[in-house]
Amino acid sequence: MYPLGLAQRYPYGQWWLGAHASEVNRTILPRTILGQAVVFFRTESGSAVALAGTCPHRHFPLAKGCLVGDSIRCGYHGLTFDASGRCVHIPSQDKVPPAFAVRHYPVVERGGSVWIWMGSSDAADPALLPPLEEIGLGAAGWAMEQHPLVTIKGRYELLIDNLLDLSHISFIHETTIPGGGAVAAIPPEVIDTATSLNVRRQAKGMPGNPLLKLLFPDYDGRFDQNFDAEYYGPHLIRTGGAIAAHAATPGESSRPLGITNFIHAITPETPTTTHYFVVTTRNFRIDDERIARMNFGMGAKIQPQDTDVLESIEATIDQVGDARRELVCGADAGAPRASAARRADPRRTRAS
Amino acid sequence: MYPLGLAQRYPYGQWWLGAHASEVNRTILPRTILGQAVVFFRTESGSAVALAGTCPHRHFPLAKGCLVGDSIRCGYHGLTFDASGRCVHIPSQDKVPPAFAVRHYPVVERGGSVWIWMGSSDAADPALLPPLEEIGLGAAGWAMEQHPLVTIKGRYELLIDNLLDLSHISFIHETTIPGGGAVAAIPPEVIDTATSLNVRRQAKGMPGNPLLKLLFPDYDGRFDQNFDAEYYGPHLIRTGGAIAAHAATPGESSRPLGITNFIHAITPETPTTTHYFVVTTRNFRIDDERIARMNFGMGAKIQPQDTDVLESIEATIDQVGDARRELVCGADAGAPRASAARRADPRRTRAS
Amino acid sequence: MYPLGLAQRYPYGQWWLGAHASEVNRTILPRTILGQAVVFFRTESGSAVALAGTCPHRHFPLAKGCLVGDSIRCGYHGLTFDASGRCVHIPSQDKVPPAFAVRHYPVVERGGSVWIWMGSSDAADPALLPPLEEIGLGAAGWAMEQHPLVTIKGRYELLIDNLLDLSHISFIHETTIPGGGAVAAIPPEVIDTATSLNVRRQAKGMPGNPLLKLLFPDYDGRFDQNFDAEYYGPHLIRTGGAIAAHAATPGESSRPLGITNFIHAITPETPTTTHYFVVTTRNFRIDDERIARMNFGMGAKIQPQDTDVLESIEATIDQVGDARRELVCGADAGAPRASAARRADPRRTRAS
Repeated sequence: MYPLGLAQRYPYGQWWLGAHASEVNRTILPRTILGQAVVFFRTESGSAVALAGTCPHRHFPLAKGCLVGDSIRCGYHGLTFDASGRCVHIPSQDKVPPAFAVRHYPVVERGGSVWIWMGSSDAADPALLPPLEEIGLGAAGWAMEQHPLVTIKGRYELLIDNLLDLSHISFIHETTIPGGGAVAAIPPEVIDTATSLNVRRQAKGMPGNPLLKLLFPDYDGRFDQNFDAEYYGPHLIRTGGAIAAHAATPGESSRPLGITNFIHAITPETPTTTHYFVVTTRNFRIDDERIARMNFGMGAKIQPQDTDVLESIEATIDQVGDARRELVCGADAGAPRASAARRADPRRTRAS
Repeated sequence: MYPLGLAQRYPYGQWWLGAHASEVNRTILPRTILGQAVVFFRTESGSAVALAGTCPHRHFPLAKGCLVGDSIRCGYHGLTFDASGRCVHIPSQDKVPPAFAVRHYPVVERGGSVWIWMGSSDAADPALLPPLEEIGLGAAGWAMEQHPLVTIKGRYELLIDNLLDLSHISFIHETTIPGGGAVAAIPPEVIDTATSLNVRRQAKGMPGNPLLKLLFPDYDGRFDQNFDAEYYGPHLIRTGGAIAAHAATPGESSRPLGITNFIHAITPETPTTTHYFVVTTRNFRIDDERIARMNFGMGAKIQPQDTDVLESIEATIDQVGDARRELVCGADAGAPRASAARRADPRRTRAS
Repeated sequence: MYPLGLAQRYPYGQWWLGAHASEVNRTILPRTILGQAVVFFRTESGSAVALAGTCPHRHFPLAKGCLVGDSIRCGYHGLTFDASGRCVHIPSQDKVPPAFAVRHYPVVERGGSVWIWMGSSDAADPALLPPLEEIGLGAAGWAMEQHPLVTIKGRYELLIDNLLDLSHISFIHETTIPGGGAVAAIPPEVIDTATSLNVRRQAKGMPGNPLLKLLFPDYDGRFDQNFDAEYYGPHLIRTGGAIAAHAATPGESSRPLGITNFIHAITPETPTTTHYFVVTTRNFRIDDERIARMNFGMGAKIQPQDTDVLESIEATIDQVGDARRELVCGADAGAPRASAARRADPRRTRAS
C-alpha cells in the first residue's frame, strides 16, 4: 500500500525521531535523515543541536571535525560554525562573509528523544508532535525501554505496511511473540481518532501464556488483549495495547490489568533505507527489571525478523518493475487509509 | 557477435533449462530466470511446478514460505496458492477475490531436467524442445553426468560466443583439455541441419593422449576426433562429438569408437548474469565410474576458466562503450550466423 | 573549485604519469587511465610501450595474455599484436585484415616515469612535459623517492583542490607534518610563472622542529620555509619548497639551506577514481638513507589522511546534489584560478 516509486517526495512536515537523547552529547553524532546529512551535538549548557552534516566550503563531513565550545570546527580547513549554523571563523582571513553558514534544523527534546524538523523551519511547531506522554514516552507512571537503533535496507513505506497489518505476527513472529499465532484470524476494525488511525484486533478470552504470566503473575484467568496498530503519521506507530482480565460471565465487565506498548519511530534515511527506533512502554510494575530485560530480549528477536522481511521485499522491487500493483485483502484495513492520509497531508511541505 | 545493449528483449520463445530434476523436490527452490523470480517445487504426486517467486500481496519472496500439500503458503501474511497459481486461502477473510493469483509457468520434465517456458503460455509447445535424446540426455544407451550449476556474472551472449568459437580451447583450456592445443589451427566448417547450426572442426589422425587412452584403452592407433559446436538455440549448445579410429590407408574408412558430448544449457538470469548448466554424455562404457569421475574433474577445471573469461569481458563492456564493434575473423564461422538466426527467430515472442 | 558533473570531458591534452619506470617491464601491466583500459610493457630492447588494454575481437583483457617477443598475444583466441598495435597473427587463418589493431598510445620515459598521452597522437609533443628536472625528477644533484601508488575513490579534482589549499595541513596533517600547525594562519600569495601557478605561503623565522633538525643537523637557528603549492596542470603539482636560514637582523639576507619537494602526479582512473603518485625530491644530502626512510615514513602517514578526506567528500557528493555550490574563502587563492586555467586550456583536445 505504498507508491514504490522513488520520485515521490518525503513527507517533510513532521517531527522525525532523529536520535535518542542519550545519543546526543559532546561527541558529534552523524546521521542521514530524509537523504540529508545531519550532525547532532549538545551545547555546553545541554541543549541539543542539529546542523547540516557537511561543510559548505568543500563538503567535508562535519562529523570528522570537533566541538570547540558550542561551535563545531571542520576537520579539513578549520572553518567553524556556531550552534545556529553561522560561520564564526575562517583561518587565513579576518572577516567571514555572511554566506558562510550551514543549515540549522529545529529540534525538540521530549519523551526521551530528540525530534528533528526537516521541512521549512517556519512550519516547525512543537504542537505537531504526537501525544508522546499518552503512550508512555517520558511520562510519570510509565516504564520505558529504548531498543538499539536498527537501520533497514528498505524504504520506510514497507515498515509502515508491516506494522499496520499485524496478521504478519502469526507467520513471521509466531514463535517469538507468545499468543501471536491467533492474531491473523481476528478481523481488524479501524478506529479514527483526532490524532491517529487505530487498526485494532481484539483477542477475547485468551488463555495465559509465558509472556502474560510474567507480566501478571498474580492473575490466573483468561485474558482480553488488544493488538492495536495505531498510526500517528509516517513517523510514529504504536502497537500492542491494553490487557484485561476476561469477563467470565456475559453481564460482567472485563477488568483492566495494564497497557504494554511497542512504539515504532520510523525515520527515512534515504529513499531505500530506514532508521527504525523501537521503544517499549508499560504502565504497571514499572520498576521490574525482569520485564525490562524480557522486553529487550523480545525486541532483539523481533526486529531482525521484520528487517529480514523488509530487506527481502526491497530486493525484489526492482524485479517486480512496472508490473507492480498490490492486491488489497481484508487484513489491509489500515494501510491503504494511512497511505491516502499521507498523500492528502497538507503538511507535506517542501524540504526547505 | 552479440548485441551488447541491455535494451534488447530476451528470446522468450524457448524452453529454458530451469533446474535439474533432482533440484526440484518438496523444498521450495527459488531461481531468477530471464529477470523474473521463479519458485520450483514438486507436488505430492511428483509433478514439477513453477510459479512466480513473489507474493502478489506484498511482494515477499515465496521461497521463504512453505509447502502445504500441493500449495505454497507465503511466509509473511499466510496467503496460499495452489499449483496452478490460484490463491486458495487468505487469513482474516472468508472469500478470495479472483485477482489473487501468481503467474504459473509451463514446465516439461525431460532428459533429466525441468524445462520452463517464460513467454506466452499458449505458445508453450513441447515439440519445440531440442532433440534431447539424440544427444544423450535421458536416453537409453547413454551415460550422463550433470555438473553443478555455475551462475556467471556475464550476459548469456558472451557464453554463446565462447562456445561457438572453440579455437579458444587452444588458449584458455590448453592444459586442461588433452589435445586441445591443436584446435585453433583447424579451420571450421558450418553445417546446417533442420534443428541446428553445427560449427565443426575435424582433427584427423591425432595421436593418443591421456584422455583418449582413458576412454578407449583397447585401441592403440591414431584418432579422428570431431570438435563440434552445435547451436540448437540460445538455450542449448552441444560441443565435442564423434571419435573414430583413424583410417591408416587412403582407401580405408575410419571406424567409429564412440561419441562424447558436452551439453551446455544456457539460461539468462538477468541482463548481465547467466545460469550455466553443463551435462556430459557418452554412448560407450556407460557404466564406467572412472570416466564419470574424470568428466566431473575436467568440468570442475574448465568451467572456472570460461567463467573467468566471461566475467573479465563483462567487466570491460562499460568501458568499451560506444566504441564497441567487434571484428570478425575466420574462427568466427558460427557466432555471427547464430546471432543472425536469433534475431530472425519468429519465436521471439513477448514475455507474457 | 571543481565542476563536479561527470559529463565533463577529461583534459586529454596532457602527458599523464602512467607508471613509474620500474613498473614497466617484461610482465604486462594493466592500468585504467582516463577511463580507458591500457596495458604497459617493455620491448626486448627496453622501450616502454602502451597499448589499449582489450582485444578488439572479443574485448578480452590483454593483460591476461602474454608477451611473445615484442608482441602481445591475447589469451582468449590467440590474436597477436606488435608494439605498434598492429595485429600480426590470427590463428585459423593466413591473412590479417588491416582493421585488426589495438590503439597505440604515445609514451615518453623521463624523470623516472613513463608519461602517456591519451589525446590525439599527433598532438603528443614531448615539449609539453612539465619541467621535470627543475623540480628534481631524474636530475643530477637531486635525490628522489617514488612512493607506492595509491588509487583514491574520489574524482581527481578533489585532489587538486586538496593540494592547492595547504591550509589543510594545519588540520589534517597537524601531527604528521612537523611545523604544519602554522600553515593555515599564513595568507597565501599567487605567483604566475611561464609554466605554472604557484600558491606560496612563506613561514618566516620558524623555530626548529624534529623534521628540520633531521634535514639540517648542523644548523641551530631559526628557519624560513616555503610552503608552495605549484600547479603545472591537472597532472602535476609540486608542494614544499625552499628552506633557508632565517636572517636574524633586518638588513641581512636569509641563507639558502636546500629544497625539499613533494611531487604529486595526478592521473584520473575513472570519472570518480584517481591514481595518486607521490615522489619526494631534495637537492642536499642526497645519499642520506635516513632522510629517504623518513620521507617514505611521512608519505605512508600523509597519503592515507588525504585519501580519507577525499573519499569522504566523494561519498557525500551524491547527497549534496543540486544544492552544490562551493564557497570561496581567502585560502582558496589558487584553486579557482587553476580551475579557470584548466577550462581555458587550448590543449583540452578530444580523446582521439
